Amino acid sequence: MTFAARLADAVRRTRSVTCVGLDPRKANLPRPLRDAVSQDRPDEWAAAYTQFCCEIIEVVADIVPCVKPQAAFFEQLGPAGMIALGEVIAHARKRSLLVILDGKRNDIGSTATAYADAYLGAQSPWGSDSLTVSPYLGRDSIEPFVEICDSRDAGVFVLVKTSNPGGGLLQNRESDGQTVFQRVAELLTELNKERLNEDGFGPLGAVVGATYPAELTALRAAMPHSWILVPGFGAQGGAAGDVMGGFREDGLGAIVNSSRHLIFAHARAEFADTFGDERWQDAVRAATEQMNQQLDVVKM
Amino acid sequence: MTFAARLADAVRRTRSVTCVGLDPRKANLPRPLRDAVSQDRPDEWAAAYTQFCCEIIEVVADIVPCVKPQAAFFEQLGPAGMIALGEVIAHARKRSLLVILDGKRNDIGSTATAYADAYLGAQSPWGSDSLTVSPYLGRDSIEPFVEICDSRDAGVFVLVKTSNPGGGLLQNRESDGQTVFQRVAELLTELNKERLNEDGFGPLGAVVGATYPAELTALRAAMPHSWILVPGFGAQGGAAGDVMGGFREDGLGAIVNSSRHLIFAHARAEFADTFGDERWQDAVRAATEQMNQQLDVVKM
Repeated sequence: MTFAARLADAVRRTRSVTCVGLDPRKANLPRPLRDAVSQDRPDEWAAAYTQFCCEIIEVVADIVPCVKPQAAFFEQLGPAGMIALGEVIAHARKRSLLVILDGKRNDIGSTATAYADAYLGAQSPWGSDSLTVSPYLGRDSIEPFVEICDSRDAGVFVLVKTSNPGGGLLQNRESDGQTVFQRVAELLTELNKERLNEDGFGPLGAVVGATYPAELTALRAAMPHSWILVPGFGAQGGAAGDVMGGFREDGLGAIVNSSRHLIFAHARAEFADTFGDERWQDAVRAATEQMNQQLDVVKM
Repeated sequence: MTFAARLADAVRRTRSVTCVGLDPRKANLPRPLRDAVSQDRPDEWAAAYTQFCCEIIEVVADIVPCVKPQAAFFEQLGPAGMIALGEVIAHARKRSLLVILDGKRNDIGSTATAYADAYLGAQSPWGSDSLTVSPYLGRDSIEPFVEICDSRDAGVFVLVKTSNPGGGLLQNRESDGQTVFQRVAELLTELNKERLNEDGFGPLGAVVGATYPAELTALRAAMPHSWILVPGFGAQGGAAGDVMGGFREDGLGAIVNSSRHLIFAHARAEFADTFGDERWQDAVRAATEQMNQQLDVVKM
């Protein structure tokens, strides 16, 4: 089954469009995990990250379709962190969660092929289901990812319109009535067109920030065949109303990511008193259920 | 000493503007290294990559200023490959070669900070001198790298005009008489302006492909304070005449990368008969010396 079809299945099964972002940060880990690190060594922190992420996976596996590990935080710990990343991906897949590795990778030609093969290939030592990809290098840098999606049940999410305030510097530049991000969207639609599953989705998803609701609505229409990964919900300021434009009428077509707001819920005012650091897992569960309720869009 | 000053020093000391790209690929390794891999396991290949890259470093350390490991090929081997990458970076630094890690990383705000810290920070477990960075996410995604360059002797090379045929899809789009890549160049010049060393260079370098000589010449003028990393020489078709526009009159300002043409020189027609797979190290040395002669631009 294609990645896009598996994602639709997972959304229908869980009735959830929530993606739990796995962004472990030393300073924000619940106290019991921080306290277990005695010597501030990378391998100790890597063990803490693995435990933290795997426990989150246990807590959310039955109520969300997917998780999104953020590569940067694992890379910050060096090779020990990369071992942890591999363990986290493996654990998520074992619990039947789809994995979107957020690495924003890309390069030219044969090096792009190496990235595609590294994370999504048949022999991938990471075994991710999908990967976020940067489009600055153009169509021939995206095509190696399309090839791996054709040969395997993999998917990619290409950066289109990002959630940060400065994203517009290049993305919003307009030529002949079309912005840079609209050009990327058009490319994804072109590449998806021959690759649709029965739900009407292809393997090339898009990243569109929750912080630009009008653009999200327009891009939903411009990319009818793309799953949209919507970051920026929660801590970055996006609210439920802001992301509604990302969905099709049947509630498919978008998954909404939240990282800090869910995984560090034990520190949020509304959960801190009830759960605190000691019951951080319950806080993650409660925050994830709350987000599911806020985004109750899936029509069976 | 700043990264830009250390790079200028290394170029003057070696009288070379050659950057040796460390792009290990299973199929292209010299036969003795391939033969040592008996079971096709990632850790065996990782050991072969480490040996290959460290021997190259030994062979070129006295005749070039820097090396550029390509992260993708190490990532392809999973965590074992990342351990190898760390070893290769450490070995290059031990032999006083500047390291440009080619990872084309970036993300928004605090995640960009994590990447900057991961590869260039004071506690970096990788310990690279510099990193290639993608600009699609805009100015606020570049600033965390500027901060780390300010606090440490690190540098970055931001993608401006890439060497691949499809790079123009977004990079060449023009608004108000300025292309996307010219806008990135302008941003780098703005950010470098307050950060110049005595040679007139700042910490923000640029990537401009050898395959677009006219643009390279124009970008040299548009980014007077940026070191330019020029890929695409050799295997990708760029020749000595094509890269001359990247240098200032004193021969500083650009380093020219070649990967396959140097590291797999044993397989090139002109070196295969003399050296072959058995004396692959001598082929690397000969090809690197040849490239140095072709690019004899440094005025002392």
